[in-house]
Amino acid sequence: MRPVLIHEVGLRDGLQSERQIVPTVVKTEWLERLLDAGLDLVQVGSFVNPAKVPQMADTDELFRRVQGRPRGGTRLSALVLNEKGLERALDCGVDLVCAGASASETHSLRNAGVGSAEAVARILAVADAARKAGLQVQASVQSAFGCGFEGPVGETRVMGMVAAYVQAGIRSISLADTAGHAHPSQVAAYVRRILALCPEAEVTVHLHNTYGLGLANAYAAMDAGAAVLETSFGGLGGCPFTKLAAGNVATEDLVHGLQQAGQRLDIRLDRIIGVSQEAAMVLGRELPGCVYRTGGIRAVPALV
Amino acid sequence: MRPVLIHEVGLRDGLQSERQIVPTVVKTEWLERLLDAGLDLVQVGSFVNPAKVPQMADTDELFRRVQGRPRGGTRLSALVLNEKGLERALDCGVDLVCAGASASETHSLRNAGVGSAEAVARILAVADAARKAGLQVQASVQSAFGCGFEGPVGETRVMGMVAAYVQAGIRSISLADTAGHAHPSQVAAYVRRILALCPEAEVTVHLHNTYGLGLANAYAAMDAGAAVLETSFGGLGGCPFTKLAAGNVATEDLVHGLQQAGQRLDIRLDRIIGVSQEAAMVLGRELPGCVYRTGGIRAVPALV
Repeated sequence: MRPVLIHEVGLRDGLQSERQIVPTVVKTEWLERLLDAGLDLVQVGSFVNPAKVPQMADTDELFRRVQGRPRGGTRLSALVLNEKGLERALDCGVDLVCAGASASETHSLRNAGVGSAEAVARILAVADAARKAGLQVQASVQSAFGCGFEGPVGETRVMGMVAAYVQAGIRSISLADTAGHAHPSQVAAYVRRILALCPEAEVTVHLHNTYGLGLANAYAAMDAGAAVLETSFGGLGGCPFTKLAAGNVATEDLVHGLQQAGQRLDIRLDRIIGVSQEAAMVLGRELPGCVYRTGGIRAVPALV
Repeated sequence: MRPVLIHEVGLRDGLQSERQIVPTVVKTEWLERLLDAGLDLVQVGSFVNPAKVPQMADTDELFRRVQGRPRGGTRLSALVLNEKGLERALDCGVDLVCAGASASETHSLRNAGVGSAEAVARILAVADAARKAGLQVQASVQSAFGCGFEGPVGETRVMGMVAAYVQAGIRSISLADTAGHAHPSQVAAYVRRILALCPEAEVTVHLHNTYGLGLANAYAAMDAGAAVLETSFGGLGGCPFTKLAAGNVATEDLVHGLQQAGQRLDIRLDRIIGVSQEAAMVLGRELPGCVYRTGGIRAVPALV
């Protein structure tokens, strides 16, 4: 089994729901440290309306600040919801454009202002334009495992959206557990279903820890063949337009667990821990992650 | 796969490390509610020296208070470390005697006052006497997945202790991740190794969440064939004689996850949540568990 790739989304999903706006200079330092950590993908921000999500207003600026900086094989991603966002993304040198639509009608209306079908049509248009411009594209199904407003959304609905993505030529497919309703056997089943539909798909899973199952779901996803996990430093996160959302799986907790099993020893755990410790200070509260508080187990080579 | 059995250990492992001594009347009410919940096993306390662990001084009294109370199929357990403790257990009507020794020499010296080998000899004597008296016995290996003082303890050492238990005729074997060092592939490997050694063994796993992997390890244990999981309401817990211990897997988080997959719908989740909510009040702090704060997902039949 190929070791899983880590897509760090703390600067986007982690910070978008914080009331406090983290200064660009602080974010830049965190971004630089995350690049030093040797993560596979780092999500820098979101090209949304700065008036609606002021926390993400400096996304363009953050890209500019790390432009030209050596960053090993780390790819930079950003959320893009429409053509205007894509124009900004093209100006910034984004590697991977992430676009998504919710499987829950209610969540879609609250989050995107349109229903699921229209949201899918929109992101297929964005995806098409992005690919024509030479960018990599990831398309996601939000609320894939259940919705805080609607409850279960149904596998048929989720797989219908995945099929639409695949048919449009998209191969990087993400399932987001926006509300944290997923449980391990469900995650495994959905990942396997996508791979059965499209064996060459690169499946990403994005997990929230609302009910405590975040890391259990992450391992179920890996066992089932997921190629990428989206996680946030410190376990920050939560969609502002859902109900009862909790943080993402903490990047350092996942990486620490993988390193205990001898995997991903190339990632510099101490760099991620440092960012989470500073984020806890800046945000003035304890974050949901564990390892940034405990430190890693001594035997971990990356910490010795 | 048979659904896993739940052994609730919050009244023992959860409360033994709390500075605050919870009054017997409060514990009795919690115990009654846990019995109402329909859990498979409930650990009432520990027959240790009340001078050393005053939190457990009322264990005998708690047993007396629920004696004769209808409790479905729920078995009552207690920790027994020596013959004196066994005498108390016999007086109280314990169903299952739990005895254990640490695989870590340092942890054994700090926790039991003797090295691993002597601790094993002691508990084999206790187990023998308990079985002759007609009681069920569970023997555990503490610090089975690593030690906060010593680091890795090694599978050979752990399996040597398990082999000694099996040879003595014990079939209920528990692996305790006292320090929280376990990771999923390790847990699965150890459970499988025990079942390979003794296919009729009933394997229990006891997990702490120090580094965030508690529930991921629980699912790995179940997948590998563990029959019983030990968990604490609210995620309370932690051995007072180890380093950096954190709480156990929260009973309600595990049960909620199982119920999402249609398992253990016979357990009354609301009863466990109620105990955790009250424990958070009595102890005056937020507990590590998630579901006692969020409530269950609406679609869970047990909550409707």
